[in-house]
Amino acid sequence: MAKVKGLKCRECGREYPAEPIHVCEFCFGPLEVVYDYDEIKKNISREKIEKGPKSLWRYVDLLPVENPTVGLTAGFTPLKKAEKLGEVLGLKNLYIKDDSVNHPTLSFKDRVVSVALSKAKEFGFDTAACASTGNLANSVAAHSAQAGMNCFVFIPANLETQKIIGSLVFNPTVVAVEGNYDDVNRLCSEIANDLGWAFVNINIRPYYAEGSKTLAFEVAEQLGWRAPDVVVAPAASGSLYTKIWKGFNELKKVGLIDEVKTRMYGAQAEGCSPIAQAWREGRDFIKPVKPNTIAKSIAIGNPADGIYALQVARESNGAWETATDEEIIEGIKLLAQTEGIFTETAGGTTIAVLKKYVEKGMISPEETVVVYITGNGYKTMEVLEGKLSTPVKIKPTLKDFKEKVLARV
Amino acid sequence: MAKVKGLKCRECGREYPAEPIHVCEFCFGPLEVVYDYDEIKKNISREKIEKGPKSLWRYVDLLPVENPTVGLTAGFTPLKKAEKLGEVLGLKNLYIKDDSVNHPTLSFKDRVVSVALSKAKEFGFDTAACASTGNLANSVAAHSAQAGMNCFVFIPANLETQKIIGSLVFNPTVVAVEGNYDDVNRLCSEIANDLGWAFVNINIRPYYAEGSKTLAFEVAEQLGWRAPDVVVAPAASGSLYTKIWKGFNELKKVGLIDEVKTRMYGAQAEGCSPIAQAWREGRDFIKPVKPNTIAKSIAIGNPADGIYALQVARESNGAWETATDEEIIEGIKLLAQTEGIFTETAGGTTIAVLKKYVEKGMISPEETVVVYITGNGYKTMEVLEGKLSTPVKIKPTLKDFKEKVLARV
Repeated sequence: MAKVKGLKCRECGREYPAEPIHVCEFCFGPLEVVYDYDEIKKNISREKIEKGPKSLWRYVDLLPVENPTVGLTAGFTPLKKAEKLGEVLGLKNLYIKDDSVNHPTLSFKDRVVSVALSKAKEFGFDTAACASTGNLANSVAAHSAQAGMNCFVFIPANLETQKIIGSLVFNPTVVAVEGNYDDVNRLCSEIANDLGWAFVNINIRPYYAEGSKTLAFEVAEQLGWRAPDVVVAPAASGSLYTKIWKGFNELKKVGLIDEVKTRMYGAQAEGCSPIAQAWREGRDFIKPVKPNTIAKSIAIGNPADGIYALQVARESNGAWETATDEEIIEGIKLLAQTEGIFTETAGGTTIAVLKKYVEKGMISPEETVVVYITGNGYKTMEVLEGKLSTPVKIKPTLKDFKEKVLARV
Repeated sequence: MAKVKGLKCRECGREYPAEPIHVCEFCFGPLEVVYDYDEIKKNISREKIEKGPKSLWRYVDLLPVENPTVGLTAGFTPLKKAEKLGEVLGLKNLYIKDDSVNHPTLSFKDRVVSVALSKAKEFGFDTAACASTGNLANSVAAHSAQAGMNCFVFIPANLETQKIIGSLVFNPTVVAVEGNYDDVNRLCSEIANDLGWAFVNINIRPYYAEGSKTLAFEVAEQLGWRAPDVVVAPAASGSLYTKIWKGFNELKKVGLIDEVKTRMYGAQAEGCSPIAQAWREGRDFIKPVKPNTIAKSIAIGNPADGIYALQVARESNGAWETATDEEIIEGIKLLAQTEGIFTETAGGTTIAVLKKYVEKGMISPEETVVVYITGNGYKTMEVLEGKLSTPVKIKPTLKDFKEKVLARV
């Protein structure tokens, strides 16, 4: 009667038990968690969820974890009606799903890492690891500390130490690898194979990725148990985007919402847009690219879930669009100056791309639109250096204030 | 039948209507909001609050605002059971009230500013202002953007522009005043008197300060409608600390909790501890000091509510204690490495001081203890530069990893 049936290859359909594995032995396709929705349907209800914890764990019935022990405050972030941004764009029912204030490390990674490490503890792992310099490393280091697990974070050796203070504070072992990201990732795969460690986005990836579904679950509940007409979400690997779609469809399967007519609109930075390029060219495969954008947190040149992201766009009557670095900065400023939310480059990309979809007439004014903001601008303020207005300098007198400031405003 | 009766001087007791004023015309004492608790008691209940919005506005019946319009996602932050930190300190019922993830600007200032600007809009102000370089400026700028109000932020001219990116992104007019903080504050008072502007912590201060009571309201609700045995909270002006006490006592007055036996333990940085020094020396008055500490966010040398903070400590059987800069850094690391929460220097001070209270035997192992973490470490990472471990450098091979990393751990 378990809710999880096992793992299944997304390519050849071969089935596996729910173990810490991520690749099909036969076709090398990625594995995904498979649930017994009939069984889940018997146990789940809106009322039960609404009485649950004020975190993503209120949806534990649809997650591959039996006993949540890590990340108990993650998720349950605000869905903000964006009145002012909506006015600017001509949208009457625009909402921001604000993971820039996710707990504790201010990005959606707190969702996936909570699920990954809770599962890793169930499997009996005592060591967590990841290759990352940004939000993922912050979250793995923080949650490992909570969980009492050893933690290893792998970074390219040429990175400035200052960039990793937000991980180092949690006291992981940081390993600086001489080489580029490809070298780092290759070494991590070798270590994952060789040692009994939980690499959150390698051997634990099938469980880890499921955490992103909670972005759909929370939004549906916050909208009064319905899926939005339009979603705009950013993509790095494409996992978050595909899991939001999976999440809405699971809610329908278990009877919590009536229908899913959501159009899934994706957003990438022009300087690293392998999924959007494939969409533009009508391809169903990804050509890897070399990232060249300020949007580091979504700059993955060879996205693991790229082809599935293309499938979801086709299935959902969705689309893909890009934003230039300049448009990304404008997107950050637009969100800040209308809604008071300071996001990072991924969020700037999403806002800039939302604007384009509206300008192209792909969103109607009355539709319910949810924009996913996945990270916080206070972590990477340097991208805005020189891009904002400068202070007006005055002497400490009312006279000088009136002459130099008031006269000008 | 209004919930707010008016304002009252804390010194001479003279009463005033609820207007944008903050100082008694007769004795120059500070004014405070006075409520009609009998009237409020008729309208308030646990059930009504629990059905309210998932923000601090669920407690609107105990706030001086009729119609909340600003900061609609502020508050409602996690109360995290701190199992691992509790183990280290020998406390079985330790909780962290985590305002490091307050919405949208990651500090408790989002509470007070939401209340201040909602009230300012009710008064008809179209311009908000403050003197601040840190959390307060971030929050006023963000909420002014949301509210569609003009915003002016005053800073000393010698501050690096990089420090204010987190405010500038919301597009306030930043005025750099040639002079020190005293010069900036004096000019702001002149402007507040001369122009019809809402200076959040000058003419709007009586309303602004009330926002901190929600730190008590949320904790009581999150503990299942009771006040904790012990609170540990940081102090700059002393306002937050005194308002937490006021909040618990108001809940008792209107019948939402049975008793308040909370001991209010305060925390200051040794390098700016005018309240703690007065406590240590048994004084009931404050001797202003010149701040010299890394804990900039709580470095107020002449705290406006200092004498009231001393009164609360006496009334509640509380105390005051300090932490050195070195202890503050250790406090930040201790919280991060046990609970996965990255706080700034104010939070480091509070954790360091909590440790001292425990070591002095002033807290028993079974008592329910709530520690207030008021700001986020990701905003001021520079204080940790050179204070954390450094990465281990390796070649991108499994062999090198095993020799240089595994052999050492």
